[in-house]
Amino acid sequence: MKLAVLGAGDVGRSVTDLAGEYGHDVVALADSSSAVIDPAGIDVERALERKVGGDPVGTADPESVFDADYDVLVEATPTTLDDAEPGFSHVRRALEADRHAVLANKGPVAERYDELRTLAADSRGSIRFEATVGGAIPILSTIEDETPQAVTAVRGVLNGTANFILTRMAAEGLDYEHVLAEAQDLGVAEADPTFDVDGTDAALKFVILANVLADGGFSLSDATVEGIQNIPGSALDLAAEDGRTIRLIGEASREGVRVGPRLVPENGALAVTGTRNIVQIETKHAGSLHNSGRGAGGPETATAVLSDVGRLAEL
Amino acid sequence: MKLAVLGAGDVGRSVTDLAGEYGHDVVALADSSSAVIDPAGIDVERALERKVGGDPVGTADPESVFDADYDVLVEATPTTLDDAEPGFSHVRRALEADRHAVLANKGPVAERYDELRTLAADSRGSIRFEATVGGAIPILSTIEDETPQAVTAVRGVLNGTANFILTRMAAEGLDYEHVLAEAQDLGVAEADPTFDVDGTDAALKFVILANVLADGGFSLSDATVEGIQNIPGSALDLAAEDGRTIRLIGEASREGVRVGPRLVPENGALAVTGTRNIVQIETKHAGSLHNSGRGAGGPETATAVLSDVGRLAEL
Repeated sequence: MKLAVLGAGDVGRSVTDLAGEYGHDVVALADSSSAVIDPAGIDVERALERKVGGDPVGTADPESVFDADYDVLVEATPTTLDDAEPGFSHVRRALEADRHAVLANKGPVAERYDELRTLAADSRGSIRFEATVGGAIPILSTIEDETPQAVTAVRGVLNGTANFILTRMAAEGLDYEHVLAEAQDLGVAEADPTFDVDGTDAALKFVILANVLADGGFSLSDATVEGIQNIPGSALDLAAEDGRTIRLIGEASREGVRVGPRLVPENGALAVTGTRNIVQIETKHAGSLHNSGRGAGGPETATAVLSDVGRLAEL
Repeated sequence: MKLAVLGAGDVGRSVTDLAGEYGHDVVALADSSSAVIDPAGIDVERALERKVGGDPVGTADPESVFDADYDVLVEATPTTLDDAEPGFSHVRRALEADRHAVLANKGPVAERYDELRTLAADSRGSIRFEATVGGAIPILSTIEDETPQAVTAVRGVLNGTANFILTRMAAEGLDYEHVLAEAQDLGVAEADPTFDVDGTDAALKFVILANVLADGGFSLSDATVEGIQNIPGSALDLAAEDGRTIRLIGEASREGVRVGPRLVPENGALAVTGTRNIVQIETKHAGSLHNSGRGAGGPETATAVLSDVGRLAEL
């Protein structure tokens, strides 16, 4: 398939880098201010070198990507809330031109799912968004193969930054501020870690899951969300005396979405460590399926995007 | 899709029972001596009642299933080794008639994979076999979505009977014979448990995985296999002193297949308990993906069959 990649951050660059290995061509790559376009496939190495070197990816106007001859638009620009722009409009334009769209950007599918559904129904193109939930872990395709109607709920840990912080607080008996600073030094937490530690990032993912289960109807404002910023080290010590620990757990069902710190058995499935993510998919006939893996990272998330591209190629 | 189901054991009956919920019709169901066929869809309730009541499913000759108007043949007759008959010929006849085949029967894909691949290449029908590996757990579709070339190895616990026995031996300090008898009482082990406890069942599954990774070339005779029949209770006690336990672990890569009892960390991912299964899928770009869930059971395995039918319906 011919890919037009919007966004040249970790995910966009990794998709561009790995596309050839999966048998696809990148015909366009855009960052916020420029684009490089080549119907025969862009020079991937050169474009990534420019970007990593601090330069724009190209010299074309990003707008011109939409005129390129592509099969799948990969939306990997930063997640935005509420109107989810400009990501939403990028996807809308691809669908209106009867092209496919694969999202790594959570905004449009968390905040404006119903509108996307309508646009996709009226288009010869389809949307897929595995990369928006759980990075490398194939959660949405698992639900799709079970059929959403056979899935009753999804529960788990879907933010690696918060999970890393809680793991380290418990392991070392350190307080939150100290471990957050450590996480930022390691690049596990961003300079502005708000969405990771206040539960918003996890909530967006569980809202997307609720939309998949219920076929729409949810946005971030429907979620009940509590973060990890106020957990004292003493809470983790107390939990440990009882053979338990604390994790930022989310749950999505057709009834709603909740994210918050929860006590979980120390050696149980939900007590994943470090930046690892896990979901428990509850099904009607097949019991509980657990999927765990790396929830974030350029290459990891890119594999989810390219997996979606592969599924679109089968249509 | 219209399904012709061969085999009226746990899996065949569950597929027949759940097909309607997934939007498919069962137009034929055969046990070893009879068949019931109806182009408009068989009376599922009646057929299952007859079978559960000890009667044949129908009055037709099982041979006549192959003349029925079906889209997908579901091969759910008992696993046989070496020539994998009659299951292999069932699948061959479906493919030669340009129909799809979905297998729950491990024999043909473990023992004669290369021949099946050739038949499928020459047919307008395709074969899928998620149900042959890990029951409800979507292992093969995960590997397919990652692309097999991006997967380097698969390791894990894929026999619930052996896992149950080892879990109980460790938990209760009982010996193997005692726990095997308990497992048989509970229906977790068969009257003849040989293939479960000697590692053959697990080996068939890891051979299938190696065939998927390497695109053929493996059969059961290529696997190095050791079972759990000779593990004394004292071995588990010793392991526990070291924070470890013993599980029947299999591993498949392009280099080969091995199954045998291994020491694993007591609280690690591989130490699943009871009849639960787990696989660790090692990937080039996405780290290690863990999938766990129920590895066996009529409804559980049926969900894997119906998931495959759904993927065929997309083609």
